[in-house]
Amino acid sequence: MFDPLAIKKPTLLLDRRRAMENIERMARKARGSGVTFRPHFKTHQSAQIGEWFGDFGTEAITVSSLEMAAYFAAHGWRDITVAFPANIREIDTINELAGRVDLGLLVESTETVSFLRQHLTSPARVWIKIDVGLHRTGIGWDQLDRVVQLARQTDDSELLEFRGVLTHSGHSYAARSCEQIEEVYRETVQRMKHVVDALRSAGLRNVLISLGDTPTCTVVDDLSAVDEVRPGNFVFHDAMQLDLGVCSEDDVAVAVGCPVVARHEERKELIIYGGAVHLSKESIRRPDGTPVFGYVALPSEDGWGPLLPDSYVSSLSQEHGMVRLGNEAFGELRIGDLLMVLPVHSCLTVDLLKVYHTLDGETIRAMGG
Amino acid sequence: MFDPLAIKKPTLLLDRRRAMENIERMARKARGSGVTFRPHFKTHQSAQIGEWFGDFGTEAITVSSLEMAAYFAAHGWRDITVAFPANIREIDTINELAGRVDLGLLVESTETVSFLRQHLTSPARVWIKIDVGLHRTGIGWDQLDRVVQLARQTDDSELLEFRGVLTHSGHSYAARSCEQIEEVYRETVQRMKHVVDALRSAGLRNVLISLGDTPTCTVVDDLSAVDEVRPGNFVFHDAMQLDLGVCSEDDVAVAVGCPVVARHEERKELIIYGGAVHLSKESIRRPDGTPVFGYVALPSEDGWGPLLPDSYVSSLSQEHGMVRLGNEAFGELRIGDLLMVLPVHSCLTVDLLKVYHTLDGETIRAMGG
Repeated sequence: MFDPLAIKKPTLLLDRRRAMENIERMARKARGSGVTFRPHFKTHQSAQIGEWFGDFGTEAITVSSLEMAAYFAAHGWRDITVAFPANIREIDTINELAGRVDLGLLVESTETVSFLRQHLTSPARVWIKIDVGLHRTGIGWDQLDRVVQLARQTDDSELLEFRGVLTHSGHSYAARSCEQIEEVYRETVQRMKHVVDALRSAGLRNVLISLGDTPTCTVVDDLSAVDEVRPGNFVFHDAMQLDLGVCSEDDVAVAVGCPVVARHEERKELIIYGGAVHLSKESIRRPDGTPVFGYVALPSEDGWGPLLPDSYVSSLSQEHGMVRLGNEAFGELRIGDLLMVLPVHSCLTVDLLKVYHTLDGETIRAMGG
Repeated sequence: MFDPLAIKKPTLLLDRRRAMENIERMARKARGSGVTFRPHFKTHQSAQIGEWFGDFGTEAITVSSLEMAAYFAAHGWRDITVAFPANIREIDTINELAGRVDLGLLVESTETVSFLRQHLTSPARVWIKIDVGLHRTGIGWDQLDRVVQLARQTDDSELLEFRGVLTHSGHSYAARSCEQIEEVYRETVQRMKHVVDALRSAGLRNVLISLGDTPTCTVVDDLSAVDEVRPGNFVFHDAMQLDLGVCSEDDVAVAVGCPVVARHEERKELIIYGGAVHLSKESIRRPDGTPVFGYVALPSEDGWGPLLPDSYVSSLSQEHGMVRLGNEAFGELRIGDLLMVLPVHSCLTVDLLKVYHTLDGETIRAMGG
């Protein structure tokens, strides 16, 4: 069915069966845990792939921009959280969306809440972003006075509906074992409950906890300690999740088919057509500290085979990828052959390529593709 | 004229005057040196900006993909070198283009030349890619037998026109001073002349030398030692060129306007709307080894002001940028303000954003934008 010869230039390939299985597994876990499943659609950014989630009962979604919220709203989604600090410069778009979907916004400052109170024209749900350790956005989990003050300011508003506290424990990506990832989850839950206790003591009602990152939501079996989970990357996984031990090779659902354009015997290196504008410059590190921009496999009848041992994309220019190969793999590859690259960060690769080619021959577009 | 309030989300801003000056300066230097100016259009990827080069007498261009060659061919360019190893899987596109423009191809292997000899249907110019030290693509400059063999194989063909040897001395980006960049240039010229001598001794005629990278072409005053130069990035420059000392702040012609969405007093950090999908994850390093994903400035009436001291984009997620600021700058910035980010690598930022907004209010589209 899958014809590697049809691929002429860097092409985003999607193993639909694997993606479906990844979705089903996470949806089932969320249902079994009795929590709301609000997957992050920034990974696939595609209306059609969104429908696959719908098939498993998903009704609520997360996105990372208002543009993405508008795209999915246009494709029928009605319950959308924008997991990004509300950008007051886009108040017109916020108002337009809040007028037609159940829009969730993230806040972490009194300035933003004051602005929303003054300028919002339709109801919106508000989550307070809590920083449980990533130190990117959010109010520190131990700054209870600030959280309570912001919750009161939100709750005391006609159009803002205070929903609860939300976090992204993205420091799970720095873990070195599944045990450490579970520890990040336990600590996250403990800190979020600490915040919720303070809010309840201050008289706030129905305070929900939302969290979400693929490592913790994949590794932890029982998610019932929280109210809502928002993982995204799990739909495809990638080299980063593989390195974390969060998924197996057989769970990775996307690869980029890249033609071999040059071969350097003396260095056991190939040059592929596939660079920073296709894969993104996201990297992970080898034990010696050198960067990896993707793992590689050979094409097979049903997609791609096992990862080639001792082989990886070692550097990227705008359009070139340089691939270090083990001796055996190098010997097998010729100019004009196709190499399959498992990207380091599938979200960024999808954002660059925007069009999926499934292994069964279908073309699926992402937003803007 | 320039209204920062009109910017709602990450927006690619272009200082047209600076870009024009950058183009004029390089075009004048090439003309003064008596060399062909074949600028690399992968940086701007825009038909309209391409016309600005035409105003300074440019007739020959470089691109990094056949897709880009087709785009510029459709906009009237007739002399196009694709500075990427010829991808034999795209032979149909190569033939289509070779039939209507003077198409230049890069080769470095007998396999590729044999394939082209068999499958090419229109004449194409061929350059042999030489590796003078970057160790990405090309035949090593000291592997003279291989170069001569490939040149003969090319020359002995009806449709392939052997033009000469081409290199990209991109290791100039690893230099730590302008003196070192000049040294890279001198060594590059020496090595390329060594190759040309061998080719002439083997009976090959009219062997041209083409080289091109912004650091050497900017720093070296007299380029007359070669036949053709292909710099690209100089049209906009960026934080990387600034760090190399190749340009001054006043030469950087692009910035990304990014709204401030969160503020962390205790860390003197801002969160901006502007992440990996806008700026790219290309980074440079501070002296202590930590990464920098962009420098920052405040908006001003005529674009943006001087770089803020001790301030830089310190990390990027998909949509978030984290900005470390000096005390004074932090104190001046509020949620909802606009921060101007000078990207690390303008080529990749342009490729992501695809639409320019000039400071005088015009919208300019790049390929695919």
